[in-house]
Amino acid sequence: MATEELGKMVEAYPMKGGDGPNGYAKNSSYQKGAAGAAQEVVNMEITEKLDVDSITLSNSNTFSIADLGCSVGPNTFSAVENIIDAVQLKYQNQGRRLNSQIPEFQVFFNDHTPNDFNILFKSLPPNRQYYATGVPGSFYGRLFPKASLHIVHSSFAIHWLSRVPKQVLDKNSPAWNKGRIHYLNSTYEVVRAFEAQYAEDMACFLDARAQEIVCGGLMVLIIPGRLQATHDSQSFRKMTHQLLGDCLMDLARKGVVTEEKVESFNIPIYYMSPTELEAAVERNGCFSVEGMENIRKVTKLGNVTESAQLISSHSRAVIEGLLSQQFGDEILDELFDLYRKKLEGNPSIFESMDANFFVTVLKRKAN
Amino acid sequence: MATEELGKMVEAYPMKGGDGPNGYAKNSSYQKGAAGAAQEVVNMEITEKLDVDSITLSNSNTFSIADLGCSVGPNTFSAVENIIDAVQLKYQNQGRRLNSQIPEFQVFFNDHTPNDFNILFKSLPPNRQYYATGVPGSFYGRLFPKASLHIVHSSFAIHWLSRVPKQVLDKNSPAWNKGRIHYLNSTYEVVRAFEAQYAEDMACFLDARAQEIVCGGLMVLIIPGRLQATHDSQSFRKMTHQLLGDCLMDLARKGVVTEEKVESFNIPIYYMSPTELEAAVERNGCFSVEGMENIRKVTKLGNVTESAQLISSHSRAVIEGLLSQQFGDEILDELFDLYRKKLEGNPSIFESMDANFFVTVLKRKAN
Repeated sequence: MATEELGKMVEAYPMKGGDGPNGYAKNSSYQKGAAGAAQEVVNMEITEKLDVDSITLSNSNTFSIADLGCSVGPNTFSAVENIIDAVQLKYQNQGRRLNSQIPEFQVFFNDHTPNDFNILFKSLPPNRQYYATGVPGSFYGRLFPKASLHIVHSSFAIHWLSRVPKQVLDKNSPAWNKGRIHYLNSTYEVVRAFEAQYAEDMACFLDARAQEIVCGGLMVLIIPGRLQATHDSQSFRKMTHQLLGDCLMDLARKGVVTEEKVESFNIPIYYMSPTELEAAVERNGCFSVEGMENIRKVTKLGNVTESAQLISSHSRAVIEGLLSQQFGDEILDELFDLYRKKLEGNPSIFESMDANFFVTVLKRKAN
Repeated sequence: MATEELGKMVEAYPMKGGDGPNGYAKNSSYQKGAAGAAQEVVNMEITEKLDVDSITLSNSNTFSIADLGCSVGPNTFSAVENIIDAVQLKYQNQGRRLNSQIPEFQVFFNDHTPNDFNILFKSLPPNRQYYATGVPGSFYGRLFPKASLHIVHSSFAIHWLSRVPKQVLDKNSPAWNKGRIHYLNSTYEVVRAFEAQYAEDMACFLDARAQEIVCGGLMVLIIPGRLQATHDSQSFRKMTHQLLGDCLMDLARKGVVTEEKVESFNIPIYYMSPTELEAAVERNGCFSVEGMENIRKVTKLGNVTESAQLISSHSRAVIEGLLSQQFGDEILDELFDLYRKKLEGNPSIFESMDANFFVTVLKRKAN
């Protein structure tokens, strides 16, 4: 399980909440680093692409921002602050320097219903310059009224599919993903099944947002993905997914979990390419692609022991909800200890962190 | 502790969350009954007082409703559904029968940050006809952007003060409330201190709402209060508060809690009268009083044993957060068992449930 995709959750499998040592709040430094790298790009894109004169605010002069797949913080708070700073600067640069000429900001923090909103709310920055609200529900459906949002942000979230494609868990299907927990390193049919699920999910995502975002409004997506058309050359992701799958098979051999449980488990993550995303945007028809920037975050890893521990901890924070739903809480310590050891035994992994992500800026076209 | 005021929470003392046997979700049937009695009034008031032609919706045709002090449900959901039904009917009666002519609804569920929003979100009705959001924070301050709400609803919430008046806990003050946990049955000075806190809080409440509600928008408040100018003749409330205070003193004598802890504990609840509320509205100046209706809910109590159990359970669901903050969780079982027994020993209490509440409808004046 690579660290870079470990930012968000799938339906009913929230990031580990709470503020304990295994929680997401304490194990999201990779996402924080990535967000930091993306921040500058986001800032620049808003400055260049947001037209505050043409955008329609509500009668109450409120500027509405949503962060989709926000998890429990703190990354969502700095992302939102960054956006607000950029928007305020934009208004000031248009000669609106009086407080009354700058809109008030309302921020909608969205994640799936099982997300720990209690922790999110308790962590809200005390001197925030916006009105905060939480919105539970899947971003693959409608979450907001029509034309009610001005900027939508989503970071390390929409690589989570709405579900595992059914056929990869079906023993009678040619796309049955026997002995693996992900499509990387798998058969042609399995890869096609994940691709199809991605296409269906992204169509739903764009359709919902097209209704919710005002004309001229922006959508900023930070997505762990691949740069190439094919799925090859993602060796870090391949290896980490493979190792985690191996750990589960080891536990099955030891009788800790059943083989059936492992065979009915897949990780619903898909690494899209910018080209695939552009194709989905074109099919949807309501957005223009205003920016597409690849970002390579070089994570400085320490020695092998530390790096293995770090990756194992990050993976656990993100994926333990998914795993405990399938296998129960009681296997987690053993599983991630084993995973850490396997990572330590494969130090070459740390030399190939080909974990790209990209920032996309879409603008809602006029109707 | 009377049951009828047990609907909401004070800063940092949430209703008991979770769905266990002691939780608010399973112990709010009194509030449900009261809401049911108020529902008809609310319905009628919206029909009569909401002018959908003059009210300004956002550009996106969204009608925004907030429930302040919503707790964890389910009462908040039926209250909101009732309001939406009334508003929809109003639009239809104005000849807007096409779906596109009826606004979309966005509902903001507000309560203090320690409220269990996770439970609230998981309990949201699956086929709801609105977009749901949660808003953490005290309703004695700003929670929403300017002119962003069309109807504000609050049921069994604003009788909770923002805090216990400082002087009633101060041994050197003439308003020190020695040996009691509430102002009822207390000295002139203690009553004045609670009155002053109420006036200050209500001024903050109305000031914040005046900014948040659009001109022509309504505020519906369901408030456990008193009908008379004086604080006398609230014998049920007096007796229940007195009995709970006696229980705490008993525990102090047994050494279960310290006397100091009991002496530094007061319940920050104030039973306002319609006249007091009208005076506060007049001082604020931004609202007109459109309706004021007293409602007497006759609760059918069973035999003494059952009634004592019911009142004790309801009290616990509402007040245990407040008590455990002061005394620790470990006293709760003993305290409420004692309380139940004391109620059983005073059966005359059940014959004098003079627990009035009233429904007020305020309209935001044009600026």
